[in-house]
Amino acid sequence: MTTSQPTSRRIASLLDLAAPVWRFFTQSSYARRIGDPTICDFAVGNPHEMPLPGFVEALRKWSVPQHPHWYAYPESKRSAQEIVAASLRGWRGLPFEPDDIFMTNGAFAALCVALTATVDPGDEVIFISPPWFFYEVLIAAAGAAPVRVKANPETFDLDLDAIAEAITPRTRAVIVNSPNNPTGRIYPPQALEGLARILTEASERHGRRIYLLSDEAYSRIIYDGRAYPSPTALYPHSFLLYTYGKTLLTPGQRLGYIALPPTMPPPAREQLRIAIFMAQIMTGYAFPNALLQHALPDLEKLSIDIEHLQHKRDWMVGALRAMGYELHVPEGTFYLLPRAPMPDDKAFIEMLAEENVFCLPGAVVEMPGYFRISLTANDGMIERGLPGFKAAVERARR
Amino acid sequence: MTTSQPTSRRIASLLDLAAPVWRFFTQSSYARRIGDPTICDFAVGNPHEMPLPGFVEALRKWSVPQHPHWYAYPESKRSAQEIVAASLRGWRGLPFEPDDIFMTNGAFAALCVALTATVDPGDEVIFISPPWFFYEVLIAAAGAAPVRVKANPETFDLDLDAIAEAITPRTRAVIVNSPNNPTGRIYPPQALEGLARILTEASERHGRRIYLLSDEAYSRIIYDGRAYPSPTALYPHSFLLYTYGKTLLTPGQRLGYIALPPTMPPPAREQLRIAIFMAQIMTGYAFPNALLQHALPDLEKLSIDIEHLQHKRDWMVGALRAMGYELHVPEGTFYLLPRAPMPDDKAFIEMLAEENVFCLPGAVVEMPGYFRISLTANDGMIERGLPGFKAAVERARR
Repeated sequence: MTTSQPTSRRIASLLDLAAPVWRFFTQSSYARRIGDPTICDFAVGNPHEMPLPGFVEALRKWSVPQHPHWYAYPESKRSAQEIVAASLRGWRGLPFEPDDIFMTNGAFAALCVALTATVDPGDEVIFISPPWFFYEVLIAAAGAAPVRVKANPETFDLDLDAIAEAITPRTRAVIVNSPNNPTGRIYPPQALEGLARILTEASERHGRRIYLLSDEAYSRIIYDGRAYPSPTALYPHSFLLYTYGKTLLTPGQRLGYIALPPTMPPPAREQLRIAIFMAQIMTGYAFPNALLQHALPDLEKLSIDIEHLQHKRDWMVGALRAMGYELHVPEGTFYLLPRAPMPDDKAFIEMLAEENVFCLPGAVVEMPGYFRISLTANDGMIERGLPGFKAAVERARR
Repeated sequence: MTTSQPTSRRIASLLDLAAPVWRFFTQSSYARRIGDPTICDFAVGNPHEMPLPGFVEALRKWSVPQHPHWYAYPESKRSAQEIVAASLRGWRGLPFEPDDIFMTNGAFAALCVALTATVDPGDEVIFISPPWFFYEVLIAAAGAAPVRVKANPETFDLDLDAIAEAITPRTRAVIVNSPNNPTGRIYPPQALEGLARILTEASERHGRRIYLLSDEAYSRIIYDGRAYPSPTALYPHSFLLYTYGKTLLTPGQRLGYIALPPTMPPPAREQLRIAIFMAQIMTGYAFPNALLQHALPDLEKLSIDIEHLQHKRDWMVGALRAMGYELHVPEGTFYLLPRAPMPDDKAFIEMLAEENVFCLPGAVVEMPGYFRISLTANDGMIERGLPGFKAAVERARR
């Protein structure tokens, strides 16, 4: 008999890091009810309405093969790279090149690939807290040390002084996410300029390039007609990470990309092109399925109804405030982030669950004392759920 | 100005390891002609005929959403796990459990995930040469040391003595691939029993479990009505790695799985279930798209025409032998592996290319002096290509 563990030590330590999110998805009341159509599901950014008809139509249309290689190994299809580059040229006003577009099976994979291409064991990678669940784990999985920097607790904006202080000679990358999940904050141009200045100076001081990994998953989920300043527009040494999973609200069909901005010096871009391709191989062939790449001409033009999402935001913010919840109005993303009306957000989440209302405890996104609401819940869930929010806040205050 | 490299040292060293395959796919004559419908393309296992009508029909049918969560985050869908478990129960005669099936976006990802779940930096992983292109690189990418063991050069069977000798206290896993790409060899039950005995004894001797990672990508591409003895049937500490990409000849739609056999002790299986799930997260959400999982009831029943593939094998083996090529008859897989009629297989490949015939140099799969032919070429390519094979062998012998 052997005495050793059946799993790798590495995976065991990553499981420790992921324990809060793991417990929520496997051991909470939500874990027991997930997928139950009778619950009011505000827990994660999953669809609760039928997919866009145009999405289904595009899959059906582009399923029909036009030549024998239709379902061959796709890598990044040239046609897809060209569509993305054209889209970014129009949208971002910079001359992105097709060769600098790397089609990935979602932004999750895009981040893994970007880390693999640039980061070595012993390096440090800064991420902003509150973060998306998996930044810390993915940084650690790449063998690097995750370095947490808190956002400004009042404005949820970047704390530039704290970022500058956290940088060391080992810092290889900074991950930012604008608009931010879970705060809904869009970082303003001044903050991004300040960040670019800090990264440029630190790169030169330490003789080593610090990359900006810009998670732009929600860059098309923007409210009130605001402009979207991309962090990549202000710092040439950026990776733009995007997924169609939010814009189309179809996270089950993995389609995203990495884009290197045309402002990045050509010699670095040329080396990174090879490195990123190899990293896509190394992480398990991290390319989108052929069908999704074929369908991109149609998918690129589609979006869920942002106006309706904004309506749900305003409806819920108004209703929750009227009940006594404290919360700010997000500028983008799917999420509201109210304060829990009692210190223990996990206990409050379970109180909501008793009302058939399911939200994400703030602790899971490093915001203890808060909870996160996903506006991807449908109108019926909101209508049925609001009395539950009311009952829970009243009970919590008793 | 910074002086450091723009890419990670890790990716640079992986690029070195992958140099032979990288050069072939980016700098050979094939690289310049790939996708050109006028060439006779025998280079890789890509489709050169229209996809199975049933495949297209299944995608179109299952694209139509049946509920609002149709395109939600899928992970391993229960329905897909059940279909695979039932298929394996029928096919392999062992009571596989749905909880032990992990749906992956292809066997490429399945291997990355299996390595991540079990292997730590400093461990050694044995692979059999000639191998699939990417074993060595994927082992190194997992931070482990790749240990190459040559197959028997006459029979292409496992060299059990050499495997036993290569095992050290650091050995964590052995990758086998039956039927083998590129030799077409199906390892017979006696060899697999011997392997199981060696791994069991070594695991006990070193107090640490050695896993068998069984790449069964071609396990349904079997000729002459042979039986397929799965390496996982004889050693309980196995990972069965499968992809539908060969059976359906649609490598662009990433659908595969890891299965743990029911003979693996339940406590190990329970720990591995969590570790594998986490490894799928860590490698960039390595689950198949929702659509492919929905379509599995139909896809599981489909296969390309193996009889026709066998006809192409016999046709080409006969024709090539008549021209003076030396080659054995493969028992499975897509591939023939003739000796090149001159010592430098890369030079011979370029000679074939001048005849508009494109094959893989043996050097790329650690078989210098040989070249690999993919039988996924269509009948027209074979007809048009055979005179080119003849002209090249005559020129090489001049």
